[in-house]
Amino acid sequence: MSSFNIIGKREPRVDALGKVTGAAKYADDYNLPHQLHGAVKYAEYPHAEILSIDTSEAEKVPGVEAVLTYKDVPGANHFGLIPNIRILADDHTRYLGDVVAVVAAVDRRTAQKAADLIKVKYRELLAVFDPEEALEENAPVIHEGGNEIVHHKVRKGDVAAGFEEADFIIEKTFKTQPIEHAYLEPEAALVYPDEHDGFTVIGCMQNFYTSHKVIAAALGLPLNKVQIIQSTMGGSFGGKDEAATLVAVRAALLAQKTGRPVKMLSTREDSIRQSYKRHAYKLYYKWGCKKDGTIAAMEIKAVADGGAYASMSPFVTWRSVVQATGPYYCPNVKTDVYAAYTNNNFTGAMRGFGSPQVNFAIESMMDELAERVGVSPLQIRLRNAFEDGAETATGQKLTHRVSLKEVLIKAAEASDFERKWREYRSEANRTKTFPKGIGLSCAYRGVSLGAEGVDAASAVVYVQPDGSVTVSAGIIDMGQGARTVMAQIVAEVLGIPLQRIHFLEPDSGRVADSGPTVASRGTIMGGGAAKIAAENVREIMKHTAAVVYSVSPAHLGFRDGKVWDDNGKSSRPLCTFEELTAACYARGKPLFASGVRHVAETNWDEETGQGNAYFTFVYGANVAEVQVDSATGQTELLNFVSVHDVGRAINKATVEGQIYGGVAMGAGYGMMEEFIQENGEAKTINFDEYYILTAMDVPKMKAVIVENPDEHGPFGAKSVGEPAVEMAAPAVTNAIYNATGRRVQNLPANLEEVRLGQKLRRNVQRASVACKIEPK
Amino acid sequence: MSSFNIIGKREPRVDALGKVTGAAKYADDYNLPHQLHGAVKYAEYPHAEILSIDTSEAEKVPGVEAVLTYKDVPGANHFGLIPNIRILADDHTRYLGDVVAVVAAVDRRTAQKAADLIKVKYRELLAVFDPEEALEENAPVIHEGGNEIVHHKVRKGDVAAGFEEADFIIEKTFKTQPIEHAYLEPEAALVYPDEHDGFTVIGCMQNFYTSHKVIAAALGLPLNKVQIIQSTMGGSFGGKDEAATLVAVRAALLAQKTGRPVKMLSTREDSIRQSYKRHAYKLYYKWGCKKDGTIAAMEIKAVADGGAYASMSPFVTWRSVVQATGPYYCPNVKTDVYAAYTNNNFTGAMRGFGSPQVNFAIESMMDELAERVGVSPLQIRLRNAFEDGAETATGQKLTHRVSLKEVLIKAAEASDFERKWREYRSEANRTKTFPKGIGLSCAYRGVSLGAEGVDAASAVVYVQPDGSVTVSAGIIDMGQGARTVMAQIVAEVLGIPLQRIHFLEPDSGRVADSGPTVASRGTIMGGGAAKIAAENVREIMKHTAAVVYSVSPAHLGFRDGKVWDDNGKSSRPLCTFEELTAACYARGKPLFASGVRHVAETNWDEETGQGNAYFTFVYGANVAEVQVDSATGQTELLNFVSVHDVGRAINKATVEGQIYGGVAMGAGYGMMEEFIQENGEAKTINFDEYYILTAMDVPKMKAVIVENPDEHGPFGAKSVGEPAVEMAAPAVTNAIYNATGRRVQNLPANLEEVRLGQKLRRNVQRASVACKIEPK
Repeated sequence: MSSFNIIGKREPRVDALGKVTGAAKYADDYNLPHQLHGAVKYAEYPHAEILSIDTSEAEKVPGVEAVLTYKDVPGANHFGLIPNIRILADDHTRYLGDVVAVVAAVDRRTAQKAADLIKVKYRELLAVFDPEEALEENAPVIHEGGNEIVHHKVRKGDVAAGFEEADFIIEKTFKTQPIEHAYLEPEAALVYPDEHDGFTVIGCMQNFYTSHKVIAAALGLPLNKVQIIQSTMGGSFGGKDEAATLVAVRAALLAQKTGRPVKMLSTREDSIRQSYKRHAYKLYYKWGCKKDGTIAAMEIKAVADGGAYASMSPFVTWRSVVQATGPYYCPNVKTDVYAAYTNNNFTGAMRGFGSPQVNFAIESMMDELAERVGVSPLQIRLRNAFEDGAETATGQKLTHRVSLKEVLIKAAEASDFERKWREYRSEANRTKTFPKGIGLSCAYRGVSLGAEGVDAASAVVYVQPDGSVTVSAGIIDMGQGARTVMAQIVAEVLGIPLQRIHFLEPDSGRVADSGPTVASRGTIMGGGAAKIAAENVREIMKHTAAVVYSVSPAHLGFRDGKVWDDNGKSSRPLCTFEELTAACYARGKPLFASGVRHVAETNWDEETGQGNAYFTFVYGANVAEVQVDSATGQTELLNFVSVHDVGRAINKATVEGQIYGGVAMGAGYGMMEEFIQENGEAKTINFDEYYILTAMDVPKMKAVIVENPDEHGPFGAKSVGEPAVEMAAPAVTNAIYNATGRRVQNLPANLEEVRLGQKLRRNVQRASVACKIEPK
Repeated sequence: MSSFNIIGKREPRVDALGKVTGAAKYADDYNLPHQLHGAVKYAEYPHAEILSIDTSEAEKVPGVEAVLTYKDVPGANHFGLIPNIRILADDHTRYLGDVVAVVAAVDRRTAQKAADLIKVKYRELLAVFDPEEALEENAPVIHEGGNEIVHHKVRKGDVAAGFEEADFIIEKTFKTQPIEHAYLEPEAALVYPDEHDGFTVIGCMQNFYTSHKVIAAALGLPLNKVQIIQSTMGGSFGGKDEAATLVAVRAALLAQKTGRPVKMLSTREDSIRQSYKRHAYKLYYKWGCKKDGTIAAMEIKAVADGGAYASMSPFVTWRSVVQATGPYYCPNVKTDVYAAYTNNNFTGAMRGFGSPQVNFAIESMMDELAERVGVSPLQIRLRNAFEDGAETATGQKLTHRVSLKEVLIKAAEASDFERKWREYRSEANRTKTFPKGIGLSCAYRGVSLGAEGVDAASAVVYVQPDGSVTVSAGIIDMGQGARTVMAQIVAEVLGIPLQRIHFLEPDSGRVADSGPTVASRGTIMGGGAAKIAAENVREIMKHTAAVVYSVSPAHLGFRDGKVWDDNGKSSRPLCTFEELTAACYARGKPLFASGVRHVAETNWDEETGQGNAYFTFVYGANVAEVQVDSATGQTELLNFVSVHDVGRAINKATVEGQIYGGVAMGAGYGMMEEFIQENGEAKTINFDEYYILTAMDVPKMKAVIVENPDEHGPFGAKSVGEPAVEMAAPAVTNAIYNATGRRVQNLPANLEEVRLGQKLRRNVQRASVACKIEPK
């Protein structure tokens, strides 16, 4: 709207120049004189008892300064939400990415040579690689207390009665695959001892406040003795939480032991081997439906593969259970979502965070329902879609603007959906060699952490004496553009150009613990905090201006680099921003303020799965148009329309960037990405084996931004980062259905899946047998 | 008082361990891979016009990466209070510490070799080395506008009438010498380009907010593109202001030019050659006195040698003019203090800052007055001393507790002054080979900056989620113990052990511009800011505790690591500090707050020298006992009593440390220190030639702390850093008078001065002639 000066503008990224010129310093770009280099010794069995670790040969290698096993960890060797991730494997190995020992040496090659000389004696144990098998009674037990990590429920109404009332039932099973985050920059950290018996950690931890706690606990130090500095990040997508923490904490342990700087760096192979993935899900959906296309009951069960450690499984599956029924009315719901330990790579946070899996199932089901009722996918969704004031499956009454129908209609219009859908489902099309198809999907998403955690974020805005501005934010920029968004918010509040704002590398003392940069909370929480901080600074300025110019602070406006007296009918400039800044400092009023963004209370009853899960939601709809090679099953993405109600687009270009990237990632998830493990061994450990959508694969995309400002967001902004990714896959598979009449129920929709539907599946071994991997 | 838990305690320095073990990182301890090293080319004449600079030979030296002259400075090459200090000499040289060019090379030796190859063509100019000569009509002009840097006045009452009324007049001339700060660590800085087109500067700048502005202006960058990190400092005593800035900004220019890290380091010789000194003063004192020992009029003129650049001369001499009449009643005052440019080393801030010079004169005069009236030095001071409600020479009514008489009586009692003074002034003592003497001095001092500048300081207190505490302070620790004092204040407010508190290296974005760490404002301003920040955090904690425990926030107490309900008659512990911290974070209340300490308004009329110059004052008294070798004039310090009303001693041990160090420095000023220049050439450029009091020379010292809490200070604390040094010299010279009957009127009281009084003086050449110094 015209009342903003910079909000909504397509400002270039504030960090673009450094990234383009190569000046940007990623974690591995930090080096210090006399630094050591770390290397790791991996577990040799996916499930085994460790009997002994012999490091003597490694220690003899010239240039080796330290070899550490779990016995050398002075503090906590375990961490995590359920603290069972091992920094160094102790009693057992649980997956092949477990690290048994770490070495620090004068260079990386020497360190790796020494690591290879470490001898470990194991007792092999039965392993399990399928989560459903892991939950069976006699399955090998991976952690004390059994393999069930978590079981979330939603109970609403009377499901049995609902199915009684139903005219027909649709029951389907879906499977989703584990995928790799595939960030450009693998994990790295440099740790060095400081002069106060503490340590400084520079690294690419997505959630550096969490890493801070893990590292301090491992070193046996209080938080104020460990300083974490967040380096520029080359992507994360949820992946640089525990994975990057593991790299950093191992470097920290080596730095503590040697008293020297230690660099620890993952190669791409290390990264894929060690890091956690998106949860594979098995999804059982049963809907009782009425002839008119409404839904009387949903019974849903999902089992997630948590892999070796709990990581974020409890929260990932919580989001699944909240959103498992989609943005659709249903009076009777019974949902159960489980996560189970296996001896696969552990799984954790990834962009979408438990929603892409259920959305794939929901949106496939909704297409099936349309087919059964005989209406278009658009019509069936409009018939069931939440409206203002809707009550969700968790009993939450939606008090914000529910724009689901708006985004659905806009998506359909922008893609000419109804016409094409009708055309492509014809036999004429489906019998072509290259049939086309169009698919629709939509979703709602709870914004930020919701009832899964405390939700507060901080920022510090400091107008320096010359009127240039320094911002320190607890929400980090991992490539998603958070700094640009926060800069625009601060610039809007202070009425100054974006170029006046500079970000300091965040560290664990510069700004208060702001929680993790996850859950698409960057703009709504981090931007909210930056707005409050900037407003707090502006208040100081207003009070000074009121004194200096004898005006009411209430009438002061900040825009175009000037301070205005907007008293009544006329506006007149009082002074420049710099002049008022100087006046403040001349009166001993430094322009430094922090801002804390708290959110409205949420609540949750774990037994019934009822509660106000999130303080607000976003809504989006996707349309994919594909062309299928009927001979090979190869699917080409032709067009994509992605419509998102973001509340307010602070920067339309970065919102579109999120949408484009999200579609590429979500469509890749739908069409080709797959992290393949065989008996726990990663088979796709670099990008020659692990396929992602490339620039050659991405379709013509149209991003449509809808703005229904939300009371909780800065200038009404909500989120787009994860919404952008979470509904792309079912749009693609629904389009494949539209083209072929074959329902993809297993992701990815690769050649076999598309060509043969459910008939032929890759024969992935899942036997629960002990299997020895020959060390390479 | 018993109501404090940690205030007043003799806690060990929070930074002691690192300094003892060598872990402390001073500026030169910072190094980066691929850093370059800087070297300088000095001026070859104290006053000359620069005709040309030929750097061609230097540039050819292998390993040289950059050679810069003033032409290469992209921004401002001038800086200072009166901005005439040159980063690189441009049109003229004005003293032999001027730097004409700087070189960056792969190592220091190469850089120096190249610097030595730079050829400069000069036109010699007449030079002047005496400030009084510099103020004469036909003196060589050093800066446009003439050699008078400043002329401050105080005009009160009617001096002519006062002298009319007087029964007798005492008129004396005094001279004080320039001295070197003699900090342990010479200046050093490391500057490196950051990833955002900016620069990071790590160095030992005493006033890094000032350095920040100078460096940003020189590089042509806004303040937010230059990040200054304050390294651990090995002393400063006022000396690492412009001197350290010059080193850092030259490194910054080289870093900007080369795009690489650049280290610039002063050797001791560089440091003494370049750096500014304490102002030499010529002081003309004329007092009209009554028979009863009261003073009817004072006419005072002082001329300070400002050297080549203005530096802090305007402020140093302003303090002199305010305090020139001492803490004594006098209805009629006319004071004129001048500072003049010469071609000596420039002079600037040094512990005491314009007070040691005038105190030497005042306290010598007061002893003379006692002699004339026939009472003891104690009695004459008690007769004239300010009391509660006194009005100063600048017309300021003192509203705080004026404890001058209290400190005088305590000093006399602690030293048995009256008895010894009588004994030592006897012929029996004075005719001994080793006569003893005892001398008394006292002074008052305006606290903090006063009307000379804006006075505000900031701090940030951050209680981390585990209850450990991080403090960021704009007031720096240069060895004086500021961090320990601030830590005790924070610990007292939060009721936690000192060990829980950790300081972050301050930087120019971590905490708001807090002004310079000077003027003994560390505790009253920095401690005050830390107290406010800690209280702001405690408020957040109180509000949470009130909710959690259903108590009134007003009744909550914080002590012994616990939170107490001090409701009415009984106290009960509610929880530990850590528990309440956890409760706050669990409610999304991060415990991070800044605090700003503003001071009461001061005012000043430059024409009349009337005004409330300072918001409060401190009072102290010194007694020195000496033994003089009557054959050689060598003076041995036997005992020293130093009494200071500090308002409140936050840490008695650090207060005593300040007193001990101050006495050693002040007595050294009185007895031996002297920076000798001949025709502008420094003759004492290392500690083989420049003498300071050593551990062998310091006397038995007794520090007496008086506490009259001041409303402006944290827990009533005022200051002691400069008070400790400023009255020691006259105590020594008064003791020499008591022992010998000879009045020392020229500092230092070296062998000649003591043995022969005013009869023989070292023949220091002061002719204003052009003189060529042969390059070494």
